[in-house]
Amino acid sequence: MSVCPFDHPILGGLLADEEIAGYFSVEAEVKAMLAFEAALASVEAKAGLIAEESAAAIVGAIATFEPDIDRLRIAVSTDGVVVPELVRQLREATGGKAASHVHFGATSQDVIDSGLMLRLKPVLAIIEQRLATFLHALGNLEKRDGERTLIAATRMQPAIPIRAGDRIESWRAPSERNLERLRAWMLEGLTLQFGGAAGTLDKLGGKANEVRSALASELGLADRPQWHSQRDRIADLASVLSLISGGFGKLGQDITLMAQTGHAIELTGGGGSSAMPHKQNPVAAEVLVTLARFNAAQLAGMHGALVHEQERSGAAWTLEWMILPQMIVATATATRLAIELATNIRRLGDKK
Amino acid sequence: MSVCPFDHPILGGLLADEEIAGYFSVEAEVKAMLAFEAALASVEAKAGLIAEESAAAIVGAIATFEPDIDRLRIAVSTDGVVVPELVRQLREATGGKAASHVHFGATSQDVIDSGLMLRLKPVLAIIEQRLATFLHALGNLEKRDGERTLIAATRMQPAIPIRAGDRIESWRAPSERNLERLRAWMLEGLTLQFGGAAGTLDKLGGKANEVRSALASELGLADRPQWHSQRDRIADLASVLSLISGGFGKLGQDITLMAQTGHAIELTGGGGSSAMPHKQNPVAAEVLVTLARFNAAQLAGMHGALVHEQERSGAAWTLEWMILPQMIVATATATRLAIELATNIRRLGDKK
Amino acid sequence: MSVCPFDHPILGGLLADEEIAGYFSVEAEVKAMLAFEAALASVEAKAGLIAEESAAAIVGAIATFEPDIDRLRIAVSTDGVVVPELVRQLREATGGKAASHVHFGATSQDVIDSGLMLRLKPVLAIIEQRLATFLHALGNLEKRDGERTLIAATRMQPAIPIRAGDRIESWRAPSERNLERLRAWMLEGLTLQFGGAAGTLDKLGGKANEVRSALASELGLADRPQWHSQRDRIADLASVLSLISGGFGKLGQDITLMAQTGHAIELTGGGGSSAMPHKQNPVAAEVLVTLARFNAAQLAGMHGALVHEQERSGAAWTLEWMILPQMIVATATATRLAIELATNIRRLGDKK
Amino acid sequence: MSVCPFDHPILGGLLADEEIAGYFSVEAEVKAMLAFEAALASVEAKAGLIAEESAAAIVGAIATFEPDIDRLRIAVSTDGVVVPELVRQLREATGGKAASHVHFGATSQDVIDSGLMLRLKPVLAIIEQRLATFLHALGNLEKRDGERTLIAATRMQPAIPIRAGDRIESWRAPSERNLERLRAWMLEGLTLQFGGAAGTLDKLGGKANEVRSALASELGLADRPQWHSQRDRIADLASVLSLISGGFGKLGQDITLMAQTGHAIELTGGGGSSAMPHKQNPVAAEVLVTLARFNAAQLAGMHGALVHEQERSGAAWTLEWMILPQMIVATATATRLAIELATNIRRLGDKK
Repeated sequence: MSVCPFDHPILGGLLADEEIAGYFSVEAEVKAMLAFEAALASVEAKAGLIAEESAAAIVGAIATFEPDIDRLRIAVSTDGVVVPELVRQLREATGGKAASHVHFGATSQDVIDSGLMLRLKPVLAIIEQRLATFLHALGNLEKRDGERTLIAATRMQPAIPIRAGDRIESWRAPSERNLERLRAWMLEGLTLQFGGAAGTLDKLGGKANEVRSALASELGLADRPQWHSQRDRIADLASVLSLISGGFGKLGQDITLMAQTGHAIELTGGGGSSAMPHKQNPVAAEVLVTLARFNAAQLAGMHGALVHEQERSGAAWTLEWMILPQMIVATATATRLAIELATNIRRLGDKK
Repeated sequence: MSVCPFDHPILGGLLADEEIAGYFSVEAEVKAMLAFEAALASVEAKAGLIAEESAAAIVGAIATFEPDIDRLRIAVSTDGVVVPELVRQLREATGGKAASHVHFGATSQDVIDSGLMLRLKPVLAIIEQRLATFLHALGNLEKRDGERTLIAATRMQPAIPIRAGDRIESWRAPSERNLERLRAWMLEGLTLQFGGAAGTLDKLGGKANEVRSALASELGLADRPQWHSQRDRIADLASVLSLISGGFGKLGQDITLMAQTGHAIELTGGGGSSAMPHKQNPVAAEVLVTLARFNAAQLAGMHGALVHEQERSGAAWTLEWMILPQMIVATATATRLAIELATNIRRLGDKK
Repeated sequence: MSVCPFDHPILGGLLADEEIAGYFSVEAEVKAMLAFEAALASVEAKAGLIAEESAAAIVGAIATFEPDIDRLRIAVSTDGVVVPELVRQLREATGGKAASHVHFGATSQDVIDSGLMLRLKPVLAIIEQRLATFLHALGNLEKRDGERTLIAATRMQPAIPIRAGDRIESWRAPSERNLERLRAWMLEGLTLQFGGAAGTLDKLGGKANEVRSALASELGLADRPQWHSQRDRIADLASVLSLISGGFGKLGQDITLMAQTGHAIELTGGGGSSAMPHKQNPVAAEVLVTLARFNAAQLAGMHGALVHEQERSGAAWTLEWMILPQMIVATATATRLAIELATNIRRLGDKK
Repeated sequence: MSVCPFDHPILGGLLADEEIAGYFSVEAEVKAMLAFEAALASVEAKAGLIAEESAAAIVGAIATFEPDIDRLRIAVSTDGVVVPELVRQLREATGGKAASHVHFGATSQDVIDSGLMLRLKPVLAIIEQRLATFLHALGNLEKRDGERTLIAATRMQPAIPIRAGDRIESWRAPSERNLERLRAWMLEGLTLQFGGAAGTLDKLGGKANEVRSALASELGLADRPQWHSQRDRIADLASVLSLISGGFGKLGQDITLMAQTGHAIELTGGGGSSAMPHKQNPVAAEVLVTLARFNAAQLAGMHGALVHEQERSGAAWTLEWMILPQMIVATATATRLAIELATNIRRLGDKK
């Protein structure tokens, strides 16, 4: 199926993001979940909770383990989550006594939420880097065209002349603040999730904190108490993503408006029309508006998922799975297109 | 990439819909667009707008034409829409004089929106059929368990005893009305889109209405004036889909609440837990809540796309592409799960 | 407080609707709820469920009854709904034996949902009438300016010349379909809600259907089985309202875009600027866009409220109260502004 | 009119917030706008931009000025914004030469956005204080009942025993992080908006920065470059508000679920039913769910308003006016109810 544009063989050319793609493949997801299981076995062995041989067997099995995706697909249709079957297969692959030490003391959230964090880390670093690149491109634009003149428009009506740099600033400043917001989130938000069946790490006894801390360190995530029914960090990330794409939505809208007549801006790289070959459509600018509106709508779903009942809400958690990855890719695509657009401005401001 | 759950090799087991999948493959999309181009050539030839030989050549070429998907992907990244490159490739495949008669008088919307309608027709028929099946299953449930007793709950508090059939009715009646709404939409909404570059069929001269009517008939769609910047039917369909999934969301929520203690309902087919193998989770019921909330959030995006400026909004139209297919599959999946759930109720109402 | 623009002494000038206001005052709400109680007593007396004298006493009391609003306000803060205290006060006002016959067999939903329907009836008739007026105004515009020329714009770029009438049609046709949708809703949706404590009219015994039918007839609403946990009609109304305002959002967006240069349109009645007195801002057109986007966002909330658990969801029902009245007024205001805007078009299409 | 629940004489008892109300009256709005105008005149006089006598006259006039609200209401219906008429009236009230120095160099955004910030300052301080009070109440609850036992529930199914304190923690930790988020926003977000007609303070010449800095200091707001088309701080505030109400939504949902049977929780202060006087409905808990879902839906609208075209978008800005005040009051009400609920827990955890 090619239901969603990010996975679509054709539309993906416009809306997907090749660089991000690698982190949203099934392989990457499984790899991140197995990284959690391997690290868990290692630190539990060090803490004396499972045998060293078990840890070695588990880590060794994971090194070559290739799950049966079809069986995972079937299992998720009844379990609602992939982890029970994945663990079953991994136990089978590990074999022997060690099998029972796979996933010891952990639960589905631990694997999935921590796995998500492991992938968010490089993905958000890419978005961070692109925001910086975009800001750099705007800096160049300011240097080249900042002193040109634009007619400001308020309420869609021509107002008074301003510097082109004044409008550039209205694109730059929010993106700079968004970059700070993203960095702040990455510092605080990239956390380990580890709580066991009901969040209490009940099977780890007195070693719970020690193991959690070692596991966080092993995985390169912040060590925080389990948060599996506390979804504020996830919803907050969704907000930051929507702020980023929203800022680019303004950029896109401004450029489509300027591109109407060609007086105020000259662009390269616009798209063609099947009926009117002479046209140069500001496609990237339009799509920035699309992505801003897409993320704004999705945000309602993500914040709705804050109502996460009791110790684990199948309903609310699954809703996150449906929406968050799309918001991430939408934001990544928006950063890509914003850089492209900023670079494709041949002239901003009226002809001198 | 496997960004969205409907396209996900694993999560698809829970959230995708195999039967619907066929209509949301790239192959199906391209096939529908080519069906439009073939029918267009045929009726234009009959109307004397293009040569009979051209139509034959175009139809013949389409019969074996396999577009270069990679080039389509690249082209859509600058054009924002697949049609210009698809037409270019089809012209190449057709060759000769006939090449210039490919897509004669048509524009991107004509191909994409009509192509969507061609796929919606069988897809909505499947959803329609499933709603009927669900209503049938509820009828059986009513017959078997209708006279059992449930404790009504108002404001999440036990109130007074009711018949199990009273609660079944609160699931049945909205679905029956939704079935009527869907049928009404199918009667009125499955329309041809055909307007040419700016909606005026300017290249067809006096033959415009005749060709449009013949084209609608050929494609099995209702003949209506072009609607390419009038998106009310599309947003209305999104509303109907959300009403359907919303009704099932209530069903799902009621069942998760009843399943808490097992007094009021007995289910088969629940899911397992990686940490607590004894549990039987009401996964399908939870996912119905998820899908209802997913569609409700998407609906904001689809209705936002009603603000479709001028003769074609790249921004608003692309937003529809991002959302509508997902709403369709979410609704199809919800109907599938609702049937499964209704069938898996072993007992509704307190034990006698 | 003046938290929401529709109730705001200043902003109300722009966003509220004087004609609709009367139906959203506390007085109107209470009056509608009391109309339900009076009619209920009458038909229950006719059915022999309560004494004729009781009905006369209740109807008589209601004729002059003025509830203590402050006590209602206090009560709703703990009860979550106004009806228990309203009934208590009404019983006090009625006095004697009749007091216990007030609200006999009914529950909060019956009063509130039926009261809503009683107010929706005239309110939707106003919106219906305005849609017709708007269509008439567009008809005049078409007659006067339809043959003028506009440059079509696709993807925010000038395309080819069209008739001004072609663009008028893109505003007219959706509004005409919306008028049909609204009428269809009014025929089917303006229904009595009457179910008693848990929807089963348990206190009315064998007279339940007879009383419900007579009550519907007395109140001028359609007689349908109770629907208090079946919110599809309400969500469907919200969809129709959003389709209406969405269609006007396109109108508004098109006009703001045309008004940028003044070539394509000449308007009267625009607004002033505190800093640039020479400007004529297309305020009504902008606000149409605002209202379309407002309703689109609200729609997510209204469809989310379809997940109405069990026999009465305090959570979901209260959400409707927060959103639906605002959507109604937003839509009424949009119809008012759309008529104003259509009438203020001095010229549509390029100067000849 | 009483369209929205926060302004509703009856429903306000449940949903409004008396303490916040004062800041959302017309009087408070006008007062904040006039505070801006008075401070502006003062600092402009100090900077030598207007005469000292003018500033004295303006400040003196403002001290007793009472605007004609009816004329403001009429004016906003054509201007789309209150400031032009407010300034006109203030000039009239000031009289003489000084009249022309009223609002010198400023524009509508400066007055409205800065006026909003002046009111947000005390309002957010109230919410901040309440979050602290809530955390304190939870601390007491933890002390009293933390060691009691609850049955954890995952996927709406009983799982394993946990401490009551474990569930308290899932309510406390997000609120503590939200308190930090709110404080961070207040530090950075409570900024002056001052840019003049098109954001360039064009009339202030070389004194622009000096005046802006003095004005910020005078008003007790952070001094930042104008941000009138950069709405990220506003959308970010909306996100923080929704995170707060979302966290309380989880609290409310958990409590409604526990209150079903009364085993796990004992509450005081529940609401009555008109049909079943014996019931104790967990109204405050339900309303927390309502407010969480309300704010989540509104957030889509607020983030959509990030697409704020050019130097001032009438459409996007008006959308903020429609939504943000409601989100603020919804959040304030949620904090009030959360404290009430936490205080009304007589026992959490199963009976020992």
